[in-house]
Amino acid sequence: MSLFHATVRVTPRPGLLDPEGKAIHHALESLGYDGVGEVRVGKAITLEVEAASRDEALARVDEMCRKLLANPVTEDYRIELSEEEGGTP
Amino acid sequence: MSLFHATVRVTPRPGLLDPEGKAIHHALESLGYDGVGEVRVGKAITLEVEAASRDEALARVDEMCRKLLANPVTEDYRIELSEEEGGTP
Repeated sequence: MSLFHATVRVTPRPGLLDPEGKAIHHALESLGYDGVGEVRVGKAITLEVEAASRDEALARVDEMCRKLLANPVTEDYRIELSEEEGGTP
Repeated sequence: MSLFHATVRVTPRPGLLDPEGKAIHHALESLGYDGVGEVRVGKAITLEVEAASRDEALARVDEMCRKLLANPVTEDYRIELSEEEGGTP
């Protein structure tokens, strides 16, 4: 088994309202920042997963995203995976 | 002026409690996922910024992070910057 380090980026789907992004945009304007376009706020979840192979790790994290980490109706997700050095083979 | 696309990753500092990460870890265990290590939840904020150069865009976004986007006591941040095609030079 090796240890994989996964980062899941969960973002609101394009076109859907993002109230937190709107609030940040408004606050930046209040602070005097002009020329700031659309602001969107998503989540970046990092987790460590044990798996026999990279493919297995990716499949497990993808399943976690569909079951728990992302809302399939309102959010998109993207998984970045890297293998830790010194795993137990 | 060119349009730059910035992604700011804001993460809780190592060693600080991350209740949202703990909750996700617990929920994953309840769903039967063993072998999941530490889970940490951060924010991924994407924004578009107009600036004359890449350096200026980076400096502006860094200032935004220090003033608004990240809490310097409890959070770290990292900025990724890319230039949009077809900006107005």
